[in-house]
Amino acid sequence: MSSAQVVRGDSLMSVAVISIARMSSTVISYDQGMGRWEPDARGRLEQAALALYGERGFEQTTVAEIAKRAGLTERTFFRYFADKREVLFWGAATLQDFLVSTVASAPDAAAPIDAVAAALEAAGALFQERRESVLLRQAVIVANAELRERELIKLASLASALAGALRRRGVAEPAASLAAEAGIAVFRIAFERWISEASQADLPQVIRESLDELKAVTAGK
Amino acid sequence: MSSAQVVRGDSLMSVAVISIARMSSTVISYDQGMGRWEPDARGRLEQAALALYGERGFEQTTVAEIAKRAGLTERTFFRYFADKREVLFWGAATLQDFLVSTVASAPDAAAPIDAVAAALEAAGALFQERRESVLLRQAVIVANAELRERELIKLASLASALAGALRRRGVAEPAASLAAEAGIAVFRIAFERWISEASQADLPQVIRESLDELKAVTAGK
Repeated sequence: MSSAQVVRGDSLMSVAVISIARMSSTVISYDQGMGRWEPDARGRLEQAALALYGERGFEQTTVAEIAKRAGLTERTFFRYFADKREVLFWGAATLQDFLVSTVASAPDAAAPIDAVAAALEAAGALFQERRESVLLRQAVIVANAELRERELIKLASLASALAGALRRRGVAEPAASLAAEAGIAVFRIAFERWISEASQADLPQVIRESLDELKAVTAGK
Repeated sequence: MSSAQVVRGDSLMSVAVISIARMSSTVISYDQGMGRWEPDARGRLEQAALALYGERGFEQTTVAEIAKRAGLTERTFFRYFADKREVLFWGAATLQDFLVSTVASAPDAAAPIDAVAAALEAAGALFQERRESVLLRQAVIVANAELRERELIKLASLASALAGALRRRGVAEPAASLAAEAGIAVFRIAFERWISEASQADLPQVIRESLDELKAVTAGK
């Protein structure tokens, strides 16, 4: 299918944009003055899906509805995503690659926990930039048992990947796995604090504070 | 159904007992000299299920086969377990209660991480006593994606329960969650080392060593 065949539903798109913009001022950098400029198809589908999952629930939303709201076809949807769940998890591989390469590029002298912390803080900065859509996604995940399970599996995979990255830096086991698991635990708890706070707390900062707390806790304080 | 109605297949039971005994000398304390003495129905069903899952795979085993090998009826199976997966996870609630009550009964002066570590070491001692059936169960879990997911969820629930037990001791957040998550990470990594070692390493000891490693790792060593 060529892009010329893509059905454009401008009025629908406007509704979607307004609906999403109401939930998030940062999801779409959409300048009305720019007329026809639109985000890419993947981004449009993702935003439409998040909005619908939030409004109707994940279970109740169909791929047809997502495609319609994004002003695209179902066929286009399936060019980007295997199913409606993948819309919420396709970024996991990118996040994992980012964490692994950040750990790999840490200074040789960096302690394992510091290499992991630097990677998580850098990822935290990316989450911070997309705070509104991250919050929206999280609300969808929390509301659905199957999605919560998938999120747990994602975090376990991230921990394994981080441990592998540390081993490639010469860190022995079980130190590599412990540093990776501790890092993911810190990230999870920092993330939960960050999303539960109405304030615009800085996620990388919350991650650093949580790591300091973990250091105090493991020191028996 | 009264116990008198339970179908007893003695020759089948013998096969099951020999088959299980071959895999595990500790699963059944079965003294041939004692004649009719047999483990309880729940234990027999569990042992039969573990043996069959190990031989044929979890997916390929039916409840009818489990009941038959245990010398019991399907109806008896469903009196104890909702489905064949629950055979592998019914102990989770007991484990959670045990961990929570052990944390609750730690001395007032105990640091959060030490209260958690004491509970995990005590649980480790129970695992140690049942090493052969724990290994058998673990092999079944590892071989099946759905069961691995369920195990992750179980561990996440244990961490939540431990954090709750710490909060009831007056430990503030995020220290409570961090100590609980760190404890579960230590347990997981210690458990993996313990099952992968051919030697008869002592699980509580491996847990203590892993906690010491975590302390070194978080201290930036």
